[in-house]
Amino acid sequence: MRGHIEDLLTRFEKRLPRALARTISLIEDRAEGYEEVMGRLYRMGCLGSYRVGITGPPGAGKSTLVDKIALDRRFDDREIGIVAVDPSSPFTGGAILGDRVRMRDLAAHRNIFIRSMASRGSSGGLAEATKDVLVAFEAFGKQLVFVETVGVGQVELDVVDACDTVIVVMTPESGDSIQALKSGIIEIADIFVVNKADRDGAEIFAMELQSILDLKEGDASSWKTPIVPTTATTGDGIDKLIAAIEAHRRFMEDNGLFRRHRLGQIENKIREIVDEKIRRSVDERLFTGRDLTEFAEEILAGKTDPYSVAENEFPLTNLFGDI
Amino acid sequence: MRGHIEDLLTRFEKRLPRALARTISLIEDRAEGYEEVMGRLYRMGCLGSYRVGITGPPGAGKSTLVDKIALDRRFDDREIGIVAVDPSSPFTGGAILGDRVRMRDLAAHRNIFIRSMASRGSSGGLAEATKDVLVAFEAFGKQLVFVETVGVGQVELDVVDACDTVIVVMTPESGDSIQALKSGIIEIADIFVVNKADRDGAEIFAMELQSILDLKEGDASSWKTPIVPTTATTGDGIDKLIAAIEAHRRFMEDNGLFRRHRLGQIENKIREIVDEKIRRSVDERLFTGRDLTEFAEEILAGKTDPYSVAENEFPLTNLFGDI
Repeated sequence: MRGHIEDLLTRFEKRLPRALARTISLIEDRAEGYEEVMGRLYRMGCLGSYRVGITGPPGAGKSTLVDKIALDRRFDDREIGIVAVDPSSPFTGGAILGDRVRMRDLAAHRNIFIRSMASRGSSGGLAEATKDVLVAFEAFGKQLVFVETVGVGQVELDVVDACDTVIVVMTPESGDSIQALKSGIIEIADIFVVNKADRDGAEIFAMELQSILDLKEGDASSWKTPIVPTTATTGDGIDKLIAAIEAHRRFMEDNGLFRRHRLGQIENKIREIVDEKIRRSVDERLFTGRDLTEFAEEILAGKTDPYSVAENEFPLTNLFGDI
Repeated sequence: MRGHIEDLLTRFEKRLPRALARTISLIEDRAEGYEEVMGRLYRMGCLGSYRVGITGPPGAGKSTLVDKIALDRRFDDREIGIVAVDPSSPFTGGAILGDRVRMRDLAAHRNIFIRSMASRGSSGGLAEATKDVLVAFEAFGKQLVFVETVGVGQVELDVVDACDTVIVVMTPESGDSIQALKSGIIEIADIFVVNKADRDGAEIFAMELQSILDLKEGDASSWKTPIVPTTATTGDGIDKLIAAIEAHRRFMEDNGLFRRHRLGQIENKIREIVDEKIRRSVDERLFTGRDLTEFAEEILAGKTDPYSVAENEFPLTNLFGDI
């Protein structure tokens, strides 16, 4: 086992794409030894990659936009990583098949590595696993990393939180989403893209969006979220989008925000590791050998409730000594 | 505060719909006193409602199916609750507006209470809050409860886990999802619905689905997942669907599975309450007054990693006494 991991990490450090793929699988599966691997990856560097998150409704053109940027000539000499996250994938078999074609096309470019992350019917951990993959990309030397997510459910919000620049893609058809925009999306977007800008209503949509953004508080020194019209299929507007990303990156770096962001992520990671260890330990200490059925039966009988059982039968004083 | 809660619960026990709505808001917001309210709700009864979960891709016709069943004459004298869960709602403003019309229509029926649950841009807790709402429905005397979810991301899987009968709705167009069906969906479905059964390819789709189901292991005594073709818009097949739900309900009850299911849910709830209390207490004990930035800086410098910091700086022995 140990030899196997050492071997994998040696090949990883030689930057063999297959070793990256294997490492990601190991992390995704939470396979034996993954924590050791993660620890080693963190030591390979945590500031080397810049992460751009892209979110928006299905069909808004996120993948096409990412592809156009990633394949832009000026990034030919940059190491690029792409993670496509789809928490609802069990129902989107078609999208996954589509991804395969896309992945084959992108794989022709040696500087690009793409991986799709899907919830495989089991609950928990997709956001965590995705963030760990971003660490692997960073350790592997990926300089520019794109994270695509569908929608903004809980998983996606957790994921974009790990990105340095967040792009929200909308289309003129999303017109009635303006209402929804008011709740939550505005806060996460560093750049808005109005894709399919050649369609009817695109200008009006962009204007409405602008008027919402204008209401946003912000002092002179803060970032002003730009709206970039694009037509991903033809490539129109991609130049401006790349310029907007670069501008936001400069803003993040010049103000020390990039570094502070990474520090915050690492602090959260420490907390998560400790919390998870404690959860496991607690389950062992508090619940092992105790049959909860008896309490559940009493609750079904209306004699007590889960909160009272937790309070009376599993008091924290049983767990913590006098410290 | 206390008087306010007592007042609310008094009106709740009088079964005033407004008190139910207020109670749900309090639970959703995790407002002060919600744990006490939840405890009281559990004591009002945990076996009174039967929960039917309905999931499937967007546009499959889930809401229409639920409405047809809920409005079926034979349920006129039953207390019905509906929860519509949409974790990706920030991007589906239209759907939410659509829900309002639907809610107004359903609200005309005094025996029906509908509530939509949406992720409000903050991560965490949607599945938990939804399960708590099901407890409130049960305490309020709702006998038949429908839980609609879009897709099967993590949140949705957690939610359907709280249901006694799970219906997966597909359409002939979901043809290429057959592949995806193999991963995870089969396991959660108690009933399959092929909606829009009047469309081309519906029969072939149902046959393909059947051949996948046939591969599923199962002894003679186990439940055989039926496939029910429906056309929700015209009401075709609704009778058969209701019969299938009733058959599965009998199966669950006759085999003691319904009761066992509730016991298991209550046991999980006890664990969750204890885990959450411990997490909060641990954060206080381990992290208060400790600045993680210093460690994060060392990690950025490549000197250590989050796993080593967790192990060395936050050992569990600091937390647990000698017990």
